[in-house]
Amino acid sequence: MPLFPTDAAIREVGLRDGLQSIQRVLPTQRKREWIRDAYQAGQREIEVGSFVPARLLPQLADTAELVAFAKTLPGLFVSVLVPNLRGAERAFETQADLLLVPLSASREHSLANLRKTPDEVVAEVARIRAARDASGAKTLIEGGIGTAFGCTIQGRVEESEVLRCMQALLDAGADRVSIADTVGYAGPRAVRDLFEKARRIAGERFWCGHFHDTRGLALANVYAALETGVARFDATLAGIGGCPHAPGASGNASSEDLAFMLADMGIETGIDISGLLALREKVAQWLEGETLHGALWRAGLPKSFAQHAASAALTA
Amino acid sequence: MPLFPTDAAIREVGLRDGLQSIQRVLPTQRKREWIRDAYQAGQREIEVGSFVPARLLPQLADTAELVAFAKTLPGLFVSVLVPNLRGAERAFETQADLLLVPLSASREHSLANLRKTPDEVVAEVARIRAARDASGAKTLIEGGIGTAFGCTIQGRVEESEVLRCMQALLDAGADRVSIADTVGYAGPRAVRDLFEKARRIAGERFWCGHFHDTRGLALANVYAALETGVARFDATLAGIGGCPHAPGASGNASSEDLAFMLADMGIETGIDISGLLALREKVAQWLEGETLHGALWRAGLPKSFAQHAASAALTA
Repeated sequence: MPLFPTDAAIREVGLRDGLQSIQRVLPTQRKREWIRDAYQAGQREIEVGSFVPARLLPQLADTAELVAFAKTLPGLFVSVLVPNLRGAERAFETQADLLLVPLSASREHSLANLRKTPDEVVAEVARIRAARDASGAKTLIEGGIGTAFGCTIQGRVEESEVLRCMQALLDAGADRVSIADTVGYAGPRAVRDLFEKARRIAGERFWCGHFHDTRGLALANVYAALETGVARFDATLAGIGGCPHAPGASGNASSEDLAFMLADMGIETGIDISGLLALREKVAQWLEGETLHGALWRAGLPKSFAQHAASAALTA
Repeated sequence: MPLFPTDAAIREVGLRDGLQSIQRVLPTQRKREWIRDAYQAGQREIEVGSFVPARLLPQLADTAELVAFAKTLPGLFVSVLVPNLRGAERAFETQADLLLVPLSASREHSLANLRKTPDEVVAEVARIRAARDASGAKTLIEGGIGTAFGCTIQGRVEESEVLRCMQALLDAGADRVSIADTVGYAGPRAVRDLFEKARRIAGERFWCGHFHDTRGLALANVYAALETGVARFDATLAGIGGCPHAPGASGNASSEDLAFMLADMGIETGIDISGLLALREKVAQWLEGETLHGALWRAGLPKSFAQHAASAALTA
């Protein structure tokens, strides 16, 4: 039986993947409060927004201001999503710690969503890498491979194509690569198979798994990924989010449920689950009327949970 | 990395674990339709009810009639739950294929719920076994160990106590033993650890895993159990059910989501998922106003799913 990582990180992407799929614009002051409370609850990686044109995603127009605020919190690793070189230049200027460039392994989804082929995205990553090296910026570049388990337009996506894209991203100069089940098609066995192969290609540069809970399998998929040694996962508070180009794809892995599962497994995340649940309550009020997800907030932590988690960590 | 079973069985327990926690009484004719449709969708193991006094669970008062009907469907394996020898005798009379005697590994939960200590339940199983052998009935006896991962009254339940109960049940003459996370406290690592040890004690007589989705981990727990070679799981259509003695424990693993996960993994269940989804729609109408669960019914099957599942089964 495989061992598990002793530590894992949850990257909170609710402020980007979550809020971009919600029509209402959350005021910047609220987002700062979210970032601050998440930090105080122990979260140390947050994707605060996207550098995309404000006319496309007005909800995320304050990303530069949020990066600046997040950078004032010691030890917080601040990510942004960028679709192209223009966005990457803003990430360099704001000194974000990491920028994620999304690539869609499904050619049809890529053309519909990004208006580029996967290889055109790879070429853009090469330009971003060149610009980063020329500028002296320290921002890490992550190539995030989406629709890695299929998509609603094309259907099946071959594993070999995902791995080809991964190698191409690394060759183009991506510091990190990650795999996303954008539309919630993945099951745990497929995750284990693909993640094992991805680890063989990218080693420690395989950075993160991103799962949607569309068919209830997000946490099973995280568990399968942990078995391959991957120890970083995107998640959103209250499981908010979806994909505007993937009908029915609503719901990321919920940060608080994931934090619970990891703690129950004795895997250290540094997160205070009660603090996260308190923040969830606050964000749920701000987003009243939106569809929220997750199970732990309703059920609460098990009795004697602290004692159990401590003992699990000792035997981990 | 561990291999997975090539085949797995979903035991539908919605008619028992599901309906017992719902106030309304579903007419016998509806239940027969449920059993027939489940059978037509490929389900081959159904727990049709409990032999408990009708004043306690009027919802399940028609269990004998349902056993008789279910036994007319060729190849359907018909289970019932019984709390004691009196109930077991009714199971023998009706020629149920299997009776499950619940035992609670949490002493406090056992006293509150069953008004017996775990060892008193073991003694009852010994009496049931003696009666079965004397009667010549062919009904298999399953000892189902509940609250195996803790309970809301006592909190922590030690693994050693669960395994002690398992050995005692086997020694008392149980043909099968199973493990249930009655209140939804289990995480996948704890499942893997406990199920591995249980397999060492009971081998193929370790029969079934029963998970509640209270904290969103039911399917992750099934996945972890599959890795230990266990290949039979209780589930309820639309995830209905709970535990009247365990607040917040609502929601079993949903049969249709579980069937999807297994098919996605290339594990054969014989279930036609579309047929199961059609039955879910029907049952949802019958139970209008009750809290239902599950994700697949909303999202639907992935595009190209049939092709993917067939290919997964080939490489399994």
